Amino acid sequence: MSQKKITPRSEDFAAWYQDVVYQADLAEPADVVKGCMVIKPHGYAVWERLQAELDRRFKETGHKNAYFPLLIPESFLRREAEHVEGFSPELAVVTIAGGKKLEEPYVIRPTSETIIGHFFSKWIQSWRDLPLLINQWANVVRWELRTRLFLRTTEFLWQEGHTAHASEEEARAEARRMLEVYADVAENVMAMPVIKGTKTQAEKFAGAVKSLSIEAMMQNGLALQAGTSHELGQNFGRAFGVKFQNRDGQLDYVWQTSWGVSTRLIGGLVMTHSDDSGLVLPPRLAPVQAVVVPIYRKDTDRDAILSRSHALAAELKRAGILAETDDREGFTPGNKFFHWEQRGVPLTVELGPRDLAENKVVLKRRDTGLKQPVGQEGLAESAARLLECVQKDMHAAARERLESRTVTAESFDQVRGILEPVTAEKGGGKFVMAHLKDAPEVDAQIKALKASVRCIPFEDRYGGAGQCILTGETVPRRVVVAKAY
Amino acid sequence: MSQKKITPRSEDFAAWYQDVVYQADLAEPADVVKGCMVIKPHGYAVWERLQAELDRRFKETGHKNAYFPLLIPESFLRREAEHVEGFSPELAVVTIAGGKKLEEPYVIRPTSETIIGHFFSKWIQSWRDLPLLINQWANVVRWELRTRLFLRTTEFLWQEGHTAHASEEEARAEARRMLEVYADVAENVMAMPVIKGTKTQAEKFAGAVKSLSIEAMMQNGLALQAGTSHELGQNFGRAFGVKFQNRDGQLDYVWQTSWGVSTRLIGGLVMTHSDDSGLVLPPRLAPVQAVVVPIYRKDTDRDAILSRSHALAAELKRAGILAETDDREGFTPGNKFFHWEQRGVPLTVELGPRDLAENKVVLKRRDTGLKQPVGQEGLAESAARLLECVQKDMHAAARERLESRTVTAESFDQVRGILEPVTAEKGGGKFVMAHLKDAPEVDAQIKALKASVRCIPFEDRYGGAGQCILTGETVPRRVVVAKAY
Repeated sequence: MSQKKITPRSEDFAAWYQDVVYQADLAEPADVVKGCMVIKPHGYAVWERLQAELDRRFKETGHKNAYFPLLIPESFLRREAEHVEGFSPELAVVTIAGGKKLEEPYVIRPTSETIIGHFFSKWIQSWRDLPLLINQWANVVRWELRTRLFLRTTEFLWQEGHTAHASEEEARAEARRMLEVYADVAENVMAMPVIKGTKTQAEKFAGAVKSLSIEAMMQNGLALQAGTSHELGQNFGRAFGVKFQNRDGQLDYVWQTSWGVSTRLIGGLVMTHSDDSGLVLPPRLAPVQAVVVPIYRKDTDRDAILSRSHALAAELKRAGILAETDDREGFTPGNKFFHWEQRGVPLTVELGPRDLAENKVVLKRRDTGLKQPVGQEGLAESAARLLECVQKDMHAAARERLESRTVTAESFDQVRGILEPVTAEKGGGKFVMAHLKDAPEVDAQIKALKASVRCIPFEDRYGGAGQCILTGETVPRRVVVAKAY
Repeated sequence: MSQKKITPRSEDFAAWYQDVVYQADLAEPADVVKGCMVIKPHGYAVWERLQAELDRRFKETGHKNAYFPLLIPESFLRREAEHVEGFSPELAVVTIAGGKKLEEPYVIRPTSETIIGHFFSKWIQSWRDLPLLINQWANVVRWELRTRLFLRTTEFLWQEGHTAHASEEEARAEARRMLEVYADVAENVMAMPVIKGTKTQAEKFAGAVKSLSIEAMMQNGLALQAGTSHELGQNFGRAFGVKFQNRDGQLDYVWQTSWGVSTRLIGGLVMTHSDDSGLVLPPRLAPVQAVVVPIYRKDTDRDAILSRSHALAAELKRAGILAETDDREGFTPGNKFFHWEQRGVPLTVELGPRDLAENKVVLKRRDTGLKQPVGQEGLAESAARLLECVQKDMHAAARERLESRTVTAESFDQVRGILEPVTAEKGGGKFVMAHLKDAPEVDAQIKALKASVRCIPFEDRYGGAGQCILTGETVPRRVVVAKAY
């Protein structure tokens, strides 16, 4: 067992992040494949829990899973002008297959709008075929120069929803509906508060008419775009000839959406909740929610304590709690606490000789470190209540941080003054609410600060319209400006 | 709704297979990406059910899921001589990425022994780190010349287990254990009987010491290799330097296994059970197990019948049955029966005005077509019982076919006489049990018949040792010879 120390957040946030990911056994860089990572068992187990939460919601909103090819003819990308411009610098290209040079190369999907557009054009003839609501769980490849575990990797795992509708209104409602699903999972499963809003025209997805996103704040105050949902208008419909006969008998192009979240969310989870002792997982995503640690010094105590530990874990499991007993030999209780702490298990159940005698256990919360003795009778109930409490408290703490680090600014100098000292390593980031026009030249000036307009929030909590601090034109509300991953 | 007719099996089995796959909406060829397919929602839903059954068993046997990179440095493949020889003709190669020619190309994984071997060498130091039991759900690419939906596609979805052990015995037991898991899923979930056995040396996996497989018989009598489990010995351990300190303090290479099943299983499922009316799904894999079809001619009956239909479906769902009501407008009951029949739904629950009046429904089995009236009271119980019965009967029917089409042969001429007329289109295939030596020159002579030795069965049910019909040498038991997919 590795007893490596974790760099404190205050010292170097970026090093802390990497240490937490390593020590929790979530992932490691795939040295031999540029910018890729290996998702290790504990990281993959968190991803499976997250997938299950998302997948259930996709199905409840009427979507069906399907699977489309990994490889896309290179010419497909070129059919939508903005799309190819956005993605061509990042493509991985297969030029040889089966021992021969290919006549037309294939690209490994960076996203699947084009290939799915092609199939939608075969499947859709009439308004009766609409809406068509498809989701795909898949790997994608985008050749990134600077990569970070989970946050930006050359290959990543994600889901991509692709839908086709008979009207602009329906497509718009769908894009919004799925953003709400993402926000629900972020807030209520990941305990990660987010701001829902619209991307500026400069920041939207390559090929979209409008992009929506959820933006979260990491502990260093940097923003993380945690999920996006795009109105594609008729852009891909036109590019791939996805026509349908409408109720009036006329041919029209479909209105499409696409939306996705990825393994990046795990990076967000780490940077929202973890601490200098390692990973902290919200109970609703923890692959192990409670671990029973038997404590004995004398061999004479061993059997009784081990057998009670197993019985307690079994009782927790019967109550639907993901519980384990750490009955490994050759490790001290201290080793074991350290192990589970680094892996973010929400509750530890300590059982020593005295607890055994008194019919008690000590419950320890990972998030706050608080310990409390509770009776063994009714343990499952106490643990379930406490897990609910941990989930709520983690969300509240993250929400409080987001609120307290959101400020307003009335001039570009003020924005600069707040954001210029911020780095991913040193932290100090804030969400700056400022009046800014949605125009590429405005985005460019913010970009010069190494920051960006994260979104134009749906909800206006900062006093309505005002003059753009750069152009002086009146804009309807303040936008979120921040440094971001 | 497409009312396309399905080619009868007797006319052209290969055309029948394709028709069933299309009409059931399982998959379609991805015309624009050579040899690839799109797995459509109904097909993907079956795959998800199968994944869940497999994944649960992998976890119960102590395996953990993880995820390794899609791309593998080309040089990795060359480290194991037989491995590269086996796979290099089928590789898809990425030579350009991020707009630049790569110094060393990457291949898209055709299987992951090499890249996982590389990481195992980092993770394993001591016998305490063993066994290491990993599984990966992934897509792989093998550039195949002749492809068929599900059975052989350029890209396919699969799981690949990769394990490392401290001794040859442990690795051997693991390879066998996982073959038993596959056999369990084939027999008890897919209702597809299989023969478990060892591959000949000529037919083993490229890089393995020994390969085990399960072989199923399709309705045309052709064999389908449905799952494989390999003892890799120390081949990959040596190639990737996966060393560990054993209990005696000495360094040794680990003993590895790998094992996999893929979306090919769905092809096997189709060809085991379906009929001239379309797909037939075993209840344990059906995404919809029972569909309630309301039957009314007069609008006055409509509301009462629809509302009772919904109530009955809800009751079935409460009992854990995957049930739906087909309440679509604009389709006749005949259209609806046809629709669900083609998609293989095990049970149809018909509810007409007379049934409503008499508090009955008519249950129809997809496998046999038999109808029986049952009371609405206790419907969930009757349906659950019937579903169990369907599952068992489907297995028994497939088992009976396998038994009745397995024959013995005492000479090469006899083998030729039985197998020469067999084609995938016309059928007539059999499993021929013959005494054959496990030697490449023997396999080659069988190959000349466009057949192959499928396996040397674990279980000897055909009279023990005898003389090889080609070499005259004594061999311990008969092997299975067949034409195969």
